[in-house]
Amino acid sequence: MKISALLTSAGINIGLCVLLLSLYSILRKQPGNVNVYFGRRLAQEHSRLRESFILERLVPSPSWIVKALQYKEEEILAIAGLDAVVFLRILVFSMRIFSIAAIVCIFGVLPLNYFGQEMHHGQIPSASLDVFTIGNVVERSKWLWVHCVALYIISCAACILLYLSGAKKACKKFGHLTDTVMDRRCRPAIYRCGLCGGSTTSFQLYQNEFEPNSEKTDRNNSNLIASEEECASAFVFFKTRYAAIVASQVLQTSNPMIWVTDLAPEPDDVYWSNLWLPYKQLWIRRIATLLASIVFMFLFLIPVTFVQGLSQLDQLQQRFPFLKGILKKTFVTQLVTGYLPSVILQLFLYTVPPMMMLFSALEGPMSHSLRKKSACLKVLYFTIWNVFFVNVLSGSVISQLNVISSPKEIPTQLARAVPRQATFFITYVLTSGWASLSSEVMQLFGLIWNFIRRYVLRIKKDPTASSVPSFPYHTEIPKVLLFGLLGFTCSILAPLILPFLLVYFFLGYVVYRNQIINVYCSRYETGGLMWPIVHNTTVFSLLLTQIIAVGVFGLKESPVSAIFTILLVIFTLLFNEYCRQRFHPLFKSYSAQDFIDKDREDEQSGRMEEIHQQLHSAYCQFSPHTGDRCHPETEGEGEEEGQCSTEVNDRNRSQDMKDGLSHPTLSGLPVAKLQRAVKSLSLIIALQNKSSTNV
Amino acid sequence: MKISALLTSAGINIGLCVLLLSLYSILRKQPGNVNVYFGRRLAQEHSRLRESFILERLVPSPSWIVKALQYKEEEILAIAGLDAVVFLRILVFSMRIFSIAAIVCIFGVLPLNYFGQEMHHGQIPSASLDVFTIGNVVERSKWLWVHCVALYIISCAACILLYLSGAKKACKKFGHLTDTVMDRRCRPAIYRCGLCGGSTTSFQLYQNEFEPNSEKTDRNNSNLIASEEECASAFVFFKTRYAAIVASQVLQTSNPMIWVTDLAPEPDDVYWSNLWLPYKQLWIRRIATLLASIVFMFLFLIPVTFVQGLSQLDQLQQRFPFLKGILKKTFVTQLVTGYLPSVILQLFLYTVPPMMMLFSALEGPMSHSLRKKSACLKVLYFTIWNVFFVNVLSGSVISQLNVISSPKEIPTQLARAVPRQATFFITYVLTSGWASLSSEVMQLFGLIWNFIRRYVLRIKKDPTASSVPSFPYHTEIPKVLLFGLLGFTCSILAPLILPFLLVYFFLGYVVYRNQIINVYCSRYETGGLMWPIVHNTTVFSLLLTQIIAVGVFGLKESPVSAIFTILLVIFTLLFNEYCRQRFHPLFKSYSAQDFIDKDREDEQSGRMEEIHQQLHSAYCQFSPHTGDRCHPETEGEGEEEGQCSTEVNDRNRSQDMKDGLSHPTLSGLPVAKLQRAVKSLSLIIALQNKSSTNV
Repeated sequence: MKISALLTSAGINIGLCVLLLSLYSILRKQPGNVNVYFGRRLAQEHSRLRESFILERLVPSPSWIVKALQYKEEEILAIAGLDAVVFLRILVFSMRIFSIAAIVCIFGVLPLNYFGQEMHHGQIPSASLDVFTIGNVVERSKWLWVHCVALYIISCAACILLYLSGAKKACKKFGHLTDTVMDRRCRPAIYRCGLCGGSTTSFQLYQNEFEPNSEKTDRNNSNLIASEEECASAFVFFKTRYAAIVASQVLQTSNPMIWVTDLAPEPDDVYWSNLWLPYKQLWIRRIATLLASIVFMFLFLIPVTFVQGLSQLDQLQQRFPFLKGILKKTFVTQLVTGYLPSVILQLFLYTVPPMMMLFSALEGPMSHSLRKKSACLKVLYFTIWNVFFVNVLSGSVISQLNVISSPKEIPTQLARAVPRQATFFITYVLTSGWASLSSEVMQLFGLIWNFIRRYVLRIKKDPTASSVPSFPYHTEIPKVLLFGLLGFTCSILAPLILPFLLVYFFLGYVVYRNQIINVYCSRYETGGLMWPIVHNTTVFSLLLTQIIAVGVFGLKESPVSAIFTILLVIFTLLFNEYCRQRFHPLFKSYSAQDFIDKDREDEQSGRMEEIHQQLHSAYCQFSPHTGDRCHPETEGEGEEEGQCSTEVNDRNRSQDMKDGLSHPTLSGLPVAKLQRAVKSLSLIIALQNKSSTNV
Repeated sequence: MKISALLTSAGINIGLCVLLLSLYSILRKQPGNVNVYFGRRLAQEHSRLRESFILERLVPSPSWIVKALQYKEEEILAIAGLDAVVFLRILVFSMRIFSIAAIVCIFGVLPLNYFGQEMHHGQIPSASLDVFTIGNVVERSKWLWVHCVALYIISCAACILLYLSGAKKACKKFGHLTDTVMDRRCRPAIYRCGLCGGSTTSFQLYQNEFEPNSEKTDRNNSNLIASEEECASAFVFFKTRYAAIVASQVLQTSNPMIWVTDLAPEPDDVYWSNLWLPYKQLWIRRIATLLASIVFMFLFLIPVTFVQGLSQLDQLQQRFPFLKGILKKTFVTQLVTGYLPSVILQLFLYTVPPMMMLFSALEGPMSHSLRKKSACLKVLYFTIWNVFFVNVLSGSVISQLNVISSPKEIPTQLARAVPRQATFFITYVLTSGWASLSSEVMQLFGLIWNFIRRYVLRIKKDPTASSVPSFPYHTEIPKVLLFGLLGFTCSILAPLILPFLLVYFFLGYVVYRNQIINVYCSRYETGGLMWPIVHNTTVFSLLLTQIIAVGVFGLKESPVSAIFTILLVIFTLLFNEYCRQRFHPLFKSYSAQDFIDKDREDEQSGRMEEIHQQLHSAYCQFSPHTGDRCHPETEGEGEEEGQCSTEVNDRNRSQDMKDGLSHPTLSGLPVAKLQRAVKSLSLIIALQNKSSTNV
């Protein structure tokens, strides 16, 4: 590929992006599309766009970009939660690190690559792109140390940005701002103090601990319950956040599989149908879905190979002679070879995130956010494998496995393959990256569906709030991280990718801010749990870059640079180990000190009472605005419990049984075991009685 | 090697063993050797052997075997602690599993190997040992499924014995019997409730939690202390075991490196000099010692190569011509080629455990038992690598690394090498295994040292109790596990090893029982923490056996057997994963329920008061019988604290400063930072005051 061809391609893509974004700036002003482009604001702020003049509505304007950039981080936190902030922080991190990398590599490395060999340089536009890669540097060049220094600068900058800004800030936010969000949303922060456990055996245990006066009273009761079989799960509420965190972190019984405790997710976040799953199944499910995902990852190579076969029409014609007549027409041939393969591939690619979401649901997570996080990880592995490694190793499954099975060869193999594929990655950023942002902002599916709804099906009613989509972190985070990986690995090998990548990240920052503010609703959140994924992937990308660099320096016979790069690998590993020691526990659990401070604050301000009262109605499987099944907050406490037990008996006879129970503490009981549980129901309610007074 | 040669070798070794054991049975009756052979009983039971007739003292008798076998498990638990029981359980497990393996393989597999080829079988004694290995079975033999079935039986039996007897019993013991031991030894069980933490910042935090009335009083004080730099560690005592376990398991602050909590080891077990180490150093130390151990493991190949060079005298003579005269004498040649190499190698091998102990000490563990456990792991890796893999792969470091770097080749490589080395492993069991048991029971070093003491140095005084050695788990467990590994891997390939191995385990059971009862003193113990090492090594051995079997079946072109063995590998991995889920948390931590039950029991029986009082004098760096520095149990509490603060000031001026402080709560302070700490000493004592009233 020549540089002129690249510039042409870039020009076309830039034109396309400008066109689509202008189109968007017009479409968003049409009142008919308001629920496509302002779903969140319609649902949460109940705001209406003012009716403007017809002319203004038809003129494209960049005002939406200004509006998107105007919002402060605190406002976004209040609107869309911590996850959105973390996601935008990934983009900020990428913009920063790749700005540094671009400056270092364009001015330091690129000229070295270009003048790396004694050769006649024609005009730049007609030069091959390969001239700009490290492949053009002669072996044993004395200038390779510049590449090494550039790698050091990039790695150090990445580590510093990950640590001195990324992790620390994320942790701080994680610690303090979650509370702020909760307060602003008027969600009582004690929601998280609910406890989601493996069985009901040790209810009494907590009571004795935190209410010393009632010691021993329920000993017999609990033994009765213990004699029942495993009862999937139950919620337990505590007086203070600290008590909840203690109960969730301490090993309960001498058989760790009988009684597993965990902090409950936020009420909207609970994955009710998974709560029935007995704990003993979970580890099998986890292993099974892991295997299934790996198989799926490799099976995906089949359509890829099939699609690649489509472009070789000769073979197709030989196999299916009847196609000859059709394929003689130029138009059909162009369609089949040029367009069809990418469409088919894209269609197959669209199946990946739902498939991974399905796998993650089967895994049995107890909250939607955990499910999304798990799916995010799976999509990430899939993307990195199928876009980066499959293209780099470009061969059959067997040859790929061969590379994996001889680890010593990996650096050399990658060092040979990555610069060769750099051109492809640049065009990938141009087409897939920029195009995905444009289609994201255009919301093509939503737009078409809205059109059909309005003008074909003629549905007049506005869609409900629940139809507003939530932000697809599990597809967008892997996308951004993949481009980061491409940027790191290509940075010193083929620095030409960096300007295009920077454009992607800047554009992405504007687009995603706009989407988060206007389009997507955040019903639940992981609480910043995506950050460790980002951190680990970035460190992985850095290590991969360094390993490839070791291979390249080896091929170029520059042992000094290779040794220095190996040192850099060791430093990066040490950095990662330090971060793991320093930050990992925080993402796994909460610190007692923060919880105690918060408890004390609420106790002094008198908010604790209020929180306790709200807690009773919080964990309800059928939320008031969907099922209208239970409104315990309007009823007295005694009534509520009485009502619940009768309700359970009614349900036993009804068809609705499989949907579960409406009472918070009972919702976790597996319906299949309900008959058995009903026998000891009064006991559980008695216990619940105790724990309510306890709360 | 022929079968007759093997039998001759076995005969010689049996003779040698019988001789040494008879010698032992005589020597142990000599009053002069009583402190060599009855060190523990002298030290702990203050018993004296009765003076018997001179004739009886000179006649060898097997009575010591009977005596050793008479002790019940509970008695051994009381005498030598849980670790000894776990160690004997390893031997019992090995005896059981290899009895089953021997029956299956000798009657099922051995005839198949022997008649595996159409060949003329001469008399059995003159047959080569190779005829009895799987190497003798023809390719594509239809009888290979017997090997596969035998492997299934052995694997299942091992898993069942590890689970239905091993892990479960170990856990049960772990949960209940530790308390019993503590009670019997009159050690207050609350010792473990001491808390060894990273800094003194949050003393006040606990007080607020567990003594709600004193809330907020020390807020300012703690801030003052927090402004000091990190103060290594301190002990904190709690009212109940449950409170201690909560404090040890809950994440304390939002920076996990500021404040690290852990249950304190038993007082005798505390590694005082390591308590000074700031937590931030620990992970670096851990990584550094890991790297050092790996380097040491590979460097050890240098003496091995040198020793192997000694046996090739020709080269030596060419290099050093002046040696020619000496080496012409037959006696010298025999000595140099036949005896010197093994002596040198053995001397080098003796350096391994102390070296690993040194590494483990540098790692910074806070207790002697953790150090021993870490050393045990290191010696285990070293032994398995240098005895099993180096012999199997039998080549230079480079060729070994080559094998590691192409994982796909491993099964085939091992399948070729292991049967070839089976003869060596059989002789290794005969010589190294049996001989090590005889020398263990003889206590050669102790005997010689005792002789020198008595008759050369003419020291009359009896050695003190502290000179009684503690059981070297870190050398003996790896030894036993290595023989287990040899047994598993050779079982279906060369079943002839099994009878010799069984003799080793039976003999080992008797010898180690005897040694544990009579010789070794157990001052501290890991509390059964060795069991996970045993479990993991056994599973590793099984997996290795199965992988080798896959390779063998591949070489023998028996795809069905290979596939079934791969299934077995998967099942074994699943079994291991299940065990990890089921038992791993128990070995990492204690369950709240057990601690609560124990607390309640002690509270009702009134023992808690007594324990609290003993607690004050328990954690004292200079124990009464060695340093005579502190006897706080004879003094009033107020006095004790006053005395302590003056003592600290005295110490500041004295040379003894580096030995640390005698007061429990202050003992953890780093001396280098003492000057700074003295400033806030009164505060710490004030806090200690509070926490004493709290206790």
